[in-house]
Amino acid sequence: MENFVFQNPTKILFGRGMEDHVGEETAFYSKKVLLHYGGGSIKSSGLYDRVMASLKKAGVSWIELGGVKPNPRFSLVQEGIRLAKENQLGLILAVGGGSVIDSAKAIAMGAVIDGNVWDFYMGKGAPQSALPVGTVLTIPAAGSESSTGTVITNEEGWLKRSVNSELLYPRFSILNPELAFSLPKFQVACGVTDIMAHLMERYFTNVPHVSFTDRLIEATMKTLINQAPLVLEDPRNYDAWAEIMWAGTIAHNNLLNTGRIGDWASHDIEHEISGIYDVAHGAGLAVVFPAWMKYVWHHDVNRFAQWAVRVWNVDMDVFNPEAVALQGIARLEAFSKSMGLGTRLADLGIKDDRIDEMADKCTNGNTHTVGNFVPLDRNAIREILRLAEK
Amino acid sequence: MENFVFQNPTKILFGRGMEDHVGEETAFYSKKVLLHYGGGSIKSSGLYDRVMASLKKAGVSWIELGGVKPNPRFSLVQEGIRLAKENQLGLILAVGGGSVIDSAKAIAMGAVIDGNVWDFYMGKGAPQSALPVGTVLTIPAAGSESSTGTVITNEEGWLKRSVNSELLYPRFSILNPELAFSLPKFQVACGVTDIMAHLMERYFTNVPHVSFTDRLIEATMKTLINQAPLVLEDPRNYDAWAEIMWAGTIAHNNLLNTGRIGDWASHDIEHEISGIYDVAHGAGLAVVFPAWMKYVWHHDVNRFAQWAVRVWNVDMDVFNPEAVALQGIARLEAFSKSMGLGTRLADLGIKDDRIDEMADKCTNGNTHTVGNFVPLDRNAIREILRLAEK
Repeated sequence: MENFVFQNPTKILFGRGMEDHVGEETAFYSKKVLLHYGGGSIKSSGLYDRVMASLKKAGVSWIELGGVKPNPRFSLVQEGIRLAKENQLGLILAVGGGSVIDSAKAIAMGAVIDGNVWDFYMGKGAPQSALPVGTVLTIPAAGSESSTGTVITNEEGWLKRSVNSELLYPRFSILNPELAFSLPKFQVACGVTDIMAHLMERYFTNVPHVSFTDRLIEATMKTLINQAPLVLEDPRNYDAWAEIMWAGTIAHNNLLNTGRIGDWASHDIEHEISGIYDVAHGAGLAVVFPAWMKYVWHHDVNRFAQWAVRVWNVDMDVFNPEAVALQGIARLEAFSKSMGLGTRLADLGIKDDRIDEMADKCTNGNTHTVGNFVPLDRNAIREILRLAEK
Repeated sequence: MENFVFQNPTKILFGRGMEDHVGEETAFYSKKVLLHYGGGSIKSSGLYDRVMASLKKAGVSWIELGGVKPNPRFSLVQEGIRLAKENQLGLILAVGGGSVIDSAKAIAMGAVIDGNVWDFYMGKGAPQSALPVGTVLTIPAAGSESSTGTVITNEEGWLKRSVNSELLYPRFSILNPELAFSLPKFQVACGVTDIMAHLMERYFTNVPHVSFTDRLIEATMKTLINQAPLVLEDPRNYDAWAEIMWAGTIAHNNLLNTGRIGDWASHDIEHEISGIYDVAHGAGLAVVFPAWMKYVWHHDVNRFAQWAVRVWNVDMDVFNPEAVALQGIARLEAFSKSMGLGTRLADLGIKDDRIDEMADKCTNGNTHTVGNFVPLDRNAIREILRLAEK
């Protein structure tokens, strides 16, 4: 186990009706905020009205900025920063899924600096402060409601890049599983896949002696595997949604990487796909992760075999752990398919003509490698993308 | 799953050498603190010198109060409160195990009020503020390093009582597994038993649909069961200690009871035993918990069977879950014995002459019940204590 420092200050308010507390939680930080959201779904569901009522009751006024898209865009972030500065807003309230929250975090960083917040995404400098962010989560997936991360796509060059900073932990996040009832099946599948990916990125590590967090991660994966079919069968299954929503937060709130070093290559590779093709992040991960596994599993057969046995209930064969490992990967693919997702680039409508370009962008022209479990150069990423074709 | 609010702000600094950061972490809150500890072990181990050096380097001055005993006493708490008030100290720094930390929390509450802090322990009122507490943990056991709880024994009437308040989360806790190397085997066994008990108190719940936290608790129990024999075999096994120490913190930091209602009857009953006989808390729990289980398992055979199968690897017998449940309890007892602990009152040197008195004190003269899984009155506690004799 590696030395670590862990402190996650996000206050979680979980359960039915918890969105009615958004006003008082917000007012604790500011009486004048940016209300940030995506499309019309929060209006048709009535959530928008309930949030407004709670804010009003708490004496909070707000400026609105809707229109956040999946793979949230930098242009809208810039608009939000302008609004926050002009109106001296004190908190960014994100009502939506990971895209809205990530966009809110970008605005929170940009609102307190004179320079260009995109510099942080390009690795030039790190934020020294940020406005507080609060969230009302509608989609269990990205884990941004209690994470340090934000991922933004810049339309100039369609670069999808991330920032991680402890300043970006939301101050509060409201999680009501009922808000997920209206999600389309495709979005449910993408969300579950994203959560599984956050767990697998952490699971596949070279750090030895991480038994406790191994088991916690396995417990979280098993929860998703067991609960996802229930909400796909019955979208109004509160109990199953509650398990998934809480698992989605814990999967990405940094507890499960204490003492470990995660991989994150699959996320980096997927960011190139969704950056160019604007596919759903989860759908991209369902394609990239198995391909990544097929490329790297030889690096630590035992870890893959442990994962297959403990998470996927593959029978251990001590005489042939290789077959056990491969069976685990096959079950991951079967799980994705059972949720209606494809596992090949063609399923995303992607041909092979831009594989070189993606491998190039991902490694910044082969000037650096991505991933920690097995560091990948441009050629390795090309091979993984080709495995994703087969 | 029940609605819940969860926010644990404790900053954890984990790993080798982390105690060297105690000065800077302390100075963030105050430059004049109470240094609170137990006996001479922190001096013989060199920890005391390292803590002093770090405080000095950070410009922090301190008043010392050593002498905390297991089952920490209210008289010493009063002395600490007097010192904190007289010297206007700004933080209570606990260097030690759960007893030292619990005592520090009591002082932290008492230092900011005019009245008697024992009132809080007797359920009269709740704290409205408290001095910040920081800890350097030397014994993985009580979980107090990241919990809301404090348990104190008042010599007047030998009452052992607890307070829970979010104000009592330590601001920082330093966890270096090396500090546990010098623990006597008996104390190791008691610590592991205490952690297991924190997990079992949470596990045995009547709240349905708690699959995710079930699995997280099971993962933590399995970690302890697998790692404890390693440190008993080799007290300097850093890797195994690291797993146990981190598991001990997570077991009691409130994450694992999110959405659940725990039981806590076994703790309440054990407090009567250690309050009167001054036995080690963990040793008392090794006796009380199996007896409690034998009294309540019929209440939810399936939950006990799930626990037996998933945690103790008992083969499921769907035609006879009762036998599976009982086998789980038997394995818990075997585990305690394998660590050198007794599982009957006689092993603690306790005869049956004060069972009625303990049952009476625990229920305040049969005016209330204890526990949530099965609420227990005076008679039920008598029966459990008699089961602990057999």
